[in-house]
Amino acid sequence: MTAPEAIRWDGERLELLDQRRLPHEVVYLTIESLDEAADAIRTLAVRGAPAIGLAAAYALVVAMRQRAARHDTRETFLRDLETSAARLTAARPTAVNLAWAAGRMCRRARSEASLDALADEAGAIHREDIEICSAIGRHGAELITPGCTVLTHCNAGALAVSALGTATAPLYLRHRQGVPFRVLVDETRPLLQGARLTAWELSSAGIDVTLICDNAAASLMAAGEVNLVLVGTDRVTRNGDVVNKIGTLNLAVLCRHFGIPFYVACPSSTYDPDTASGAEVPIEERDPREVLGEAAARVPARNPAFDVTPAALVTGIVTERGIARAPLAENLARLFT
Amino acid sequence: MTAPEAIRWDGERLELLDQRRLPHEVVYLTIESLDEAADAIRTLAVRGAPAIGLAAAYALVVAMRQRAARHDTRETFLRDLETSAARLTAARPTAVNLAWAAGRMCRRARSEASLDALADEAGAIHREDIEICSAIGRHGAELITPGCTVLTHCNAGALAVSALGTATAPLYLRHRQGVPFRVLVDETRPLLQGARLTAWELSSAGIDVTLICDNAAASLMAAGEVNLVLVGTDRVTRNGDVVNKIGTLNLAVLCRHFGIPFYVACPSSTYDPDTASGAEVPIEERDPREVLGEAAARVPARNPAFDVTPAALVTGIVTERGIARAPLAENLARLFT
Repeated sequence: MTAPEAIRWDGERLELLDQRRLPHEVVYLTIESLDEAADAIRTLAVRGAPAIGLAAAYALVVAMRQRAARHDTRETFLRDLETSAARLTAARPTAVNLAWAAGRMCRRARSEASLDALADEAGAIHREDIEICSAIGRHGAELITPGCTVLTHCNAGALAVSALGTATAPLYLRHRQGVPFRVLVDETRPLLQGARLTAWELSSAGIDVTLICDNAAASLMAAGEVNLVLVGTDRVTRNGDVVNKIGTLNLAVLCRHFGIPFYVACPSSTYDPDTASGAEVPIEERDPREVLGEAAARVPARNPAFDVTPAALVTGIVTERGIARAPLAENLARLFT
Repeated sequence: MTAPEAIRWDGERLELLDQRRLPHEVVYLTIESLDEAADAIRTLAVRGAPAIGLAAAYALVVAMRQRAARHDTRETFLRDLETSAARLTAARPTAVNLAWAAGRMCRRARSEASLDALADEAGAIHREDIEICSAIGRHGAELITPGCTVLTHCNAGALAVSALGTATAPLYLRHRQGVPFRVLVDETRPLLQGARLTAWELSSAGIDVTLICDNAAASLMAAGEVNLVLVGTDRVTRNGDVVNKIGTLNLAVLCRHFGIPFYVACPSSTYDPDTASGAEVPIEERDPREVLGEAAARVPARNPAFDVTPAALVTGIVTERGIARAPLAENLARLFT
């Protein structure tokens, strides 16, 4: 058993795993037009920054092939591509990787305006993603010692990225090597990415997974049942602060208290040397209704989607170029220059 | 607006607020027989240790009155009472207060086998509960300073106790005094007592309440938005360890890290000098299905219902006899002897 694929491409057909229906149904959507791709991105059928970017790249290949008859000149080809790229980007305007992947496809076409070049570029994005995840897995593998228990938060897995995911890459790699270990996945309220996605993808790959409530982390740590916390991140600032899903800071503080290593995994594209520290990162407050489900009293709610873990609480950051440890700011800068 | 009443008694009729239907419907069940009382206790229509005990005491009055024609001798009266008490106690065998209240009713009847004596004893239990909660409120009021923000966990409120609750008593008292403050209520996964019960009861009383995910605590503490954490407890051991709803230890560790006072409120009956420390308290593991809701992948789950907060992380314990602070073991012993 291996990690499930969020995106399938056989050279002709683009299929996206419909993550809205997980973990109950494993259904792939065949994407046959630009509209279908934009819908899938907008409605979160595909999610996770790298996965969205890659889905958009392949969707542009599909859409441009479908409309090849209209492209009688280089100009019409480029104009249609750019319009299509803009429409996909608008489907989730805050997703940096989406704009990045669409932009990369357009740049390639400007130097080589052909369907083959587009397919080649999407394939290159895909291969690079796979290589980055594999390298993160190789560098992080040393953390997954035989018999250890790893706690992870949210979904920085194969579903969010192509290939092995980021925080999950060392897990998939060590599992493939036959190393025994156990993973605790926390629910990750309010949107339950841990319970819905991470628990599903790791158990689908045959990894020993146990789901816990976010509230149970301290208790299990106190009982000596957690050896390592390993999470993904949305942004690492110049000083090594880690912006990630709400609840990450809770785990980092608990790790410090209980003497447990706290590691973060990400591709180098997540490192943001232009932002000095986490204090400068605006934290998205999402719809309070995500907290106020059916069960809750009708009262006001706060719903910060991310938190900032200060560099001082981070044991190390695992990237495709190696692991940066304290002093984080210096060692990140060294890795990425 | 005042705290809602979990239990209503007008001398004749016993009404229990059906907590299963909160926060959507405020419905009182009229309890007219022993079976109805046992059902209400078993199915969690009434919950919270003191509230269950009090409901059982009044239910015995109702049941014994209803069957008065059968009690032709002192012996038949006592035998029926004891059988009835045992049936109620069996409805939730682990609830210490339930057995305690039923036992107290039986002892009173052995010295005075009359319906009036039973009604008097139940009324005494009720009055004592109210007095204890008020005294906890008076002692804890100093913690609720004007403009402060208090974070609470689970439900140690009016719904779990009669009167003002325990952790909530200082809040109700200060609110009545016109002191402005804000309460953050966390959801308290997996059973959402915070979202369903505490948020509802405090907002029903007109207190400024905001609901947050358990995961948002660290982030709000880091932002300086929490001045005090105040929770209830199921048991305080001789050394001052605090056994309470899962997730309490997370908050205590976060408080230590961020320099926020962590207080616990409870009646003296919660102090257990016969247990040396929290390490001796068996932690109930509840049904994994509470974690594995509809949304979750089908994987194994761990569901510890309580955790142990070591005395060293507790700033103080607020009781009806005053506040015990460090050294907790000594000061608790002094308060309670």
